Amino acid sequence: MPHILIITTSLRGNTAKMAPPVVEGITAEGVEARVMAPEDVLIEHLRAADGIVIGSPTRFGGVDWRIKRLFDEVAIQGYPGPLEGKAGGAFVAGSRAGSGAELTLLNALHLLLNHGLIIQGDPYGPHYGPVALGEPSAAVLDACRAAGRRWARLTLRLAAG
Amino acid sequence: MPHILIITTSLRGNTAKMAPPVVEGITAEGVEARVMAPEDVLIEHLRAADGIVIGSPTRFGGVDWRIKRLFDEVAIQGYPGPLEGKAGGAFVAGSRAGSGAELTLLNALHLLLNHGLIIQGDPYGPHYGPVALGEPSAAVLDACRAAGRRWARLTLRLAAG
Amino acid sequence: MPHILIITTSLRGNTAKMAPPVVEGITAEGVEARVMAPEDVLIEHLRAADGIVIGSPTRFGGVDWRIKRLFDEVAIQGYPGPLEGKAGGAFVAGSRAGSGAELTLLNALHLLLNHGLIIQGDPYGPHYGPVALGEPSAAVLDACRAAGRRWARLTLRLAAG
Amino acid sequence: MPHILIITTSLRGNTAKMAPPVVEGITAEGVEARVMAPEDVLIEHLRAADGIVIGSPTRFGGVDWRIKRLFDEVAIQGYPGPLEGKAGGAFVAGSRAGSGAELTLLNALHLLLNHGLIIQGDPYGPHYGPVALGEPSAAVLDACRAAGRRWARLTLRLAAG
Repeated sequence: MPHILIITTSLRGNTAKMAPPVVEGITAEGVEARVMAPEDVLIEHLRAADGIVIGSPTRFGGVDWRIKRLFDEVAIQGYPGPLEGKAGGAFVAGSRAGSGAELTLLNALHLLLNHGLIIQGDPYGPHYGPVALGEPSAAVLDACRAAGRRWARLTLRLAAG
Repeated sequence: MPHILIITTSLRGNTAKMAPPVVEGITAEGVEARVMAPEDVLIEHLRAADGIVIGSPTRFGGVDWRIKRLFDEVAIQGYPGPLEGKAGGAFVAGSRAGSGAELTLLNALHLLLNHGLIIQGDPYGPHYGPVALGEPSAAVLDACRAAGRRWARLTLRLAAG
Repeated sequence: MPHILIITTSLRGNTAKMAPPVVEGITAEGVEARVMAPEDVLIEHLRAADGIVIGSPTRFGGVDWRIKRLFDEVAIQGYPGPLEGKAGGAFVAGSRAGSGAELTLLNALHLLLNHGLIIQGDPYGPHYGPVALGEPSAAVLDACRAAGRRWARLTLRLAAG
Repeated sequence: MPHILIITTSLRGNTAKMAPPVVEGITAEGVEARVMAPEDVLIEHLRAADGIVIGSPTRFGGVDWRIKRLFDEVAIQGYPGPLEGKAGGAFVAGSRAGSGAELTLLNALHLLLNHGLIIQGDPYGPHYGPVALGEPSAAVLDACRAAGRRWARLTLRLAAG
């Protein structure tokens, strides 16, 4: 069974609340989801995953420094190449509209694109990945579930293709 | 009296509702505000302004094409140089978190930075400029007023410096 | 045979020089490439394509306004949904390092992600798509060829998946 | 005498080569320049500076994780407010066109905007700050000198205004 690695950390608990519905969405499509803190991720975990999803709090328009360090120091092992062609995605929590949440989301996606991952936008929901502003609402939790399903389906489609 | 030119267009009326509180904020600081549609702006209007603020709906992660055309076709007259050193800012309306509103805001600021304008972030409110998600709430209208005041004060500070 | 639609326009001829090697790369993988100017693209062309690639000159940190208008006015027909799941990519020409070429490239990719397209980064070459600074060098033309091959392979992989 | 704090780190030595001409440009305008590694910067250094410039290698489309950690962990002391209204800027080194250098530059500027700093674009040179692709050329070193002068003049203009 293919699996998606979710690398996530939280600041005030809002990002943490987004991970369970993302996991639900992924598993609902028959893909396994594994959740890890950035400090614990080794290059083997990244290599083994069929998909990689980053979940970060909004930190001044970019991902949390622990996630950045993971990419600068750990994901670079064997670069370029080992993560090429996997599915990717991201979700973030911020405080309010204009808090930098979308910039953080794109900053996370840039990390993944650098490694050759494959990402898909969403015309129906939040276009680049789920975004919570403050405590995640029911609509945001639904968007997390929907994103998990989309990431799982992309992973399966790429595994088949 | 120095003046700020607000170049704005609206899609569903939400961006249009942000302009009046921006104007209020600007005039409350003793700076004049002039509002124009992108189709009507000539290079003379841009040159004469002490500050330029863009107000755009969220259109697929970027400013409305009429605003883009203004910069590609009109603002380019005499480029580089004529707008250098003026104050700049932007506000946008989007549909929801993750709709691309922040990307649109940054896309607008990039246009201004290209011309040598000076922009200021905001640690207290929306960091890059006001963002409405759906119908502007009272808090968003307040943020528009506050941004107008900040843009006017920056204009005055630059005029004095 | 699947086909990729390349939507491109040029300012000083550099973007135009990038299109032929992109076409070469695409066809070398057994995928058809069709090149169109943004003014000529109808929603039917977008719907019929298996992949969509945008080629734009760097225009103040964003795509040429004609490409923006295409997305604001034409691609929106039937939105959201009709372009969902297709492969996407972009290439740009700028004047020098720091000219806004990467911002323009990302601005193009945001348009595609908004519609649900699927994009892949590249760890080996220019990470988000080919970028020419001034007259395209032999290395840039090679990067265009390589990108064309990658976009074609992604298109085929998605068609099979 | 006002002073600008340059926070910089290097990966292969190219970013390090950009700092001296930036310092030259700053001091040529009668402003002091102090260079520090991100690991050594305390909140007192940030507060005392009249301007803050970030110099980073291109690291997967964002600033080096040590710089990110500085902002996440140190610059946040007393946030929001203590850095509001200072002048800001950034310079980066990357490997080639499309390596993510511009994204890294913008990622650095977002950090500064979040804190209320004031940044200016440049219509004459690299629009958002100097960018070296590979070993900095004479033209890039000149652009660094010019950027230093512009950041110093902005600092003086803001001090006077």
